[in-house]
Amino acid sequence: MEFSSKLLENAVYEMSQLPGIGRRTALRLVLHLLRRPDDQTHRLSDALRSLRDQIRFCANCHNISDTELCEICGNPKRDERLVCVVEDIRDVLAIENTGQFQGHYHVLGGKISPIEGIGPQDLNIESLITKATLGKIKELIFALSSTMEGDTTNFYIFKQLEGMTLITSTIARGIAVGDELEYADEVTLGRSILNRIPYEKSLKTS
Amino acid sequence: MEFSSKLLENAVYEMSQLPGIGRRTALRLVLHLLRRPDDQTHRLSDALRSLRDQIRFCANCHNISDTELCEICGNPKRDERLVCVVEDIRDVLAIENTGQFQGHYHVLGGKISPIEGIGPQDLNIESLITKATLGKIKELIFALSSTMEGDTTNFYIFKQLEGMTLITSTIARGIAVGDELEYADEVTLGRSILNRIPYEKSLKTS
Repeated sequence: MEFSSKLLENAVYEMSQLPGIGRRTALRLVLHLLRRPDDQTHRLSDALRSLRDQIRFCANCHNISDTELCEICGNPKRDERLVCVVEDIRDVLAIENTGQFQGHYHVLGGKISPIEGIGPQDLNIESLITKATLGKIKELIFALSSTMEGDTTNFYIFKQLEGMTLITSTIARGIAVGDELEYADEVTLGRSILNRIPYEKSLKTS
Repeated sequence: MEFSSKLLENAVYEMSQLPGIGRRTALRLVLHLLRRPDDQTHRLSDALRSLRDQIRFCANCHNISDTELCEICGNPKRDERLVCVVEDIRDVLAIENTGQFQGHYHVLGGKISPIEGIGPQDLNIESLITKATLGKIKELIFALSSTMEGDTTNFYIFKQLEGMTLITSTIARGIAVGDELEYADEVTLGRSILNRIPYEKSLKTS
């Protein structure tokens, strides 16, 4: 695909650098913008630039925030001693949507991944350990995805916390509510049997 | 999904205005940009703005071009009296890729669509009729998609050309080369029988 215009070529190339967007889709998106009034393109262009240049992170939990402390960390009703460790803002949004968590978050900004060259020093781990060392955390809940990278990151943090008096837990893995057992994968089903909970307790949470 | 940041909210909103990109995907794309060095975002932002502000169209065929005349219209080896009517630059690219067409294009910039409020005056139809009136066109090939809108547009142009001495044709519709008959849709198969061509002719084009 060779374009008759360097400007078009450029815009399509930069658009196609986004994940999951190939050259064909990039061209479709760019042509769409050309058919719309030009202020739509200006708004998109400005919004991306402003976000990148003015982005700030909460001083406490490292979540994206326009203020020094994010809304969650600044809310006195939330329990700051209960801290949920997540990868990024999408996990915060997902957990917030459940309405079941009243503690604080700690956003790592990724997972330890030697293959992608991401080590502990590239993530917001030090500030978490500092918080724990100062005795500010009663319980730490690991809520990273259960992949090799997620498990490695959990374990790294767990080792750093050794000797401190705090509870560490992970979110429960099991069969999704409403799912049929026969379609569940073996690992999940196996874990859900090993980590079974007292029936009376399940009545309280349903 | 409520964000803790107005900047993030804004960027996600503008991104989700693109066709086929929902809020979830928009958030994924924006977070990706945040994880990359900031010049990637700057380049994308600048490329889109430059394209929109400096975009030019070929004075002859209305294709996107950085020069007064596009490469095709400026090429003396191409037959300017053979004109293929297409919707947008993607169709030009697709036909150019076949290497089978040595004429000029005329890019309409869309199709007549009362539902979307697009009338003949919103498209590059007038300049096409002028070219025809001046006797500059020997054959006009309609290559719009065979939808209600495409057919309407073809017919509108056809009526405008009444009384002029030029040939009008449309690209052949039929079973794709290599396709099995049993999986073809009825309309296409029906048309390919009605519009059958002499066997000797098919030998020349294969």
